[in-house]
Amino acid sequence: LNVNAAAAANILRGNDNFLILTHKKPDGDTLGCAAALCLGLRAIGKTAFVLENPETTPRYAPMVAPLYADGNFKPQTVVAVDCASRDILPANAQNFAVDLALDHHPTNTHYAKLSVVAPEEAACASVVAAVLRKLKVAVTPEIATALYVAVSTDTGCFSYDNTNAAAFALAAQCAKDGADITAINREIFRVKTRARIALEGAILGGIEFAFDGRAAIAVITRELILSCGAVEDDLENIAAIPVSIEGVVAAFTIRELEDEPGKFKISVRSAPGFSSSEFAQKFGGGGHAGASGFSKTASVETIKTIILQALTEYFA
Amino acid sequence: LNVNAAAAANILRGNDNFLILTHKKPDGDTLGCAAALCLGLRAIGKTAFVLENPETTPRYAPMVAPLYADGNFKPQTVVAVDCASRDILPANAQNFAVDLALDHHPTNTHYAKLSVVAPEEAACASVVAAVLRKLKVAVTPEIATALYVAVSTDTGCFSYDNTNAAAFALAAQCAKDGADITAINREIFRVKTRARIALEGAILGGIEFAFDGRAAIAVITRELILSCGAVEDDLENIAAIPVSIEGVVAAFTIRELEDEPGKFKISVRSAPGFSSSEFAQKFGGGGHAGASGFSKTASVETIKTIILQALTEYFA
Repeated sequence: LNVNAAAAANILRGNDNFLILTHKKPDGDTLGCAAALCLGLRAIGKTAFVLENPETTPRYAPMVAPLYADGNFKPQTVVAVDCASRDILPANAQNFAVDLALDHHPTNTHYAKLSVVAPEEAACASVVAAVLRKLKVAVTPEIATALYVAVSTDTGCFSYDNTNAAAFALAAQCAKDGADITAINREIFRVKTRARIALEGAILGGIEFAFDGRAAIAVITRELILSCGAVEDDLENIAAIPVSIEGVVAAFTIRELEDEPGKFKISVRSAPGFSSSEFAQKFGGGGHAGASGFSKTASVETIKTIILQALTEYFA
Repeated sequence: LNVNAAAAANILRGNDNFLILTHKKPDGDTLGCAAALCLGLRAIGKTAFVLENPETTPRYAPMVAPLYADGNFKPQTVVAVDCASRDILPANAQNFAVDLALDHHPTNTHYAKLSVVAPEEAACASVVAAVLRKLKVAVTPEIATALYVAVSTDTGCFSYDNTNAAAFALAAQCAKDGADITAINREIFRVKTRARIALEGAILGGIEFAFDGRAAIAVITRELILSCGAVEDDLENIAAIPVSIEGVVAAFTIRELEDEPGKFKISVRSAPGFSSSEFAQKFGGGGHAGASGFSKTASVETIKTIILQALTEYFA
């Protein structure tokens, strides 16, 4: 059942003992939304916790880890943020029935009893901020910071195609509410580790082009990651690199998974006119028009061949 | 004499035949402000032109070149935008007495008869937008686009330390007013030419560190630029690269000038705690706390030595 932000706020107000779920491979939007919603619910007197997400990286851990539920917490109301489907929930979240989903993915499967799905929003942060406004939460600098992390990361610091007036307006409000935007911008968008610099250099040198430069393929093996001394945080948004090159319409980053050697995640990024989600759906994946992904257990060469074959019909 | 935006608007309303001046090595802020002010003045029935800036790059030319005054135009009112001092004006602007300066540089020398100087603003665009609001200009998509170019470039797509609530609020308003933020973000902040990619790769590989990684020096010779096939537009904001590395407090980009071989522009970028402008002032330059520059005719090695010697007192 679809509801709007006001109805969602009413439902939250009438319930208590909240557990907030985030998605696998958690990004700034799901974790920032979880932190903001949890702190907001606490601010109006509710008991609220975030379910531990085992894949949370050190970058975001300080924001959410202090809000994690311990094993004894018995939730009455379960809310998922930025989660498009049940199978994107981490293993430890699979047994919970989800009461409310706050999301912005057009592909949301309505796995929750109630859903606020706003595909027009750049980030789920705008949905959470709207709910917090309806709840009349006094936004603290900590809440504003979590919302700013969410909206800024999901828009690539306001540079991606999903950036819109609402995203800027939310950022302006976060800044007014005391979010430490300077520290976040510096840490997430500007400062690069030496490992990241080495990795970017290697990727830039190894990109392969096809179809007159309209397609680009980057490969990131475990060997490369280890040789650069890179960790998970160093890989964030690395798939944005090949699609940033002039003339590239469809870009693919083939990245070997840490926990499953020989299995690769293929991130698809595209310019308008090429649907990343349609492409990924052919291989059992999904996502947005401009950003999607799928997985494949095969050799890098085989994956490249599969991609190039599937591209032939687009670029014929 | 200092005035506020309302007083500046009154003065503009009471005059006509405007010529708008921009600064040397024009960036998105000065050119976007010039275009927005020129179009805004025309929208309220004034005659207004921008003085041709011979250093305008192909990226920004489509925005301002159609607004250039021809040789016959006799200006009555001269307005400079984003120009901190008279000597930053191009040669063809040196003979004009400046009636009004709209600026955000704290180092503005008050060379104009009247000045609106708002050092708290991230971009001069916020000053121009405030004046246009006071003039009750109906902001067209074209004006909004020019203002968005200005505020987005001066904040590094909202990632630099100067980014603030007012910058985000202006961007939100520009988006609502029909600015083509997707095209601008793509063209200026995301799409990189192959030449830029090659140049970045070479720079990343050649950065020298000093003082335990707190200082970083990058060198860009004409030879490197030519070997990468790079043109002026490919070099925009290149000085932001070495200061983006973790641990770096003060970063220097030594770049050989195209028109004066053997003369170098040294761009200084710094983290809070190190004043780029104080450093540059020692060598006859200037700028902001986080971003400044100066020029030097010497060998690269001599320039490096001079920088490292001057840094010794900071990092002692």
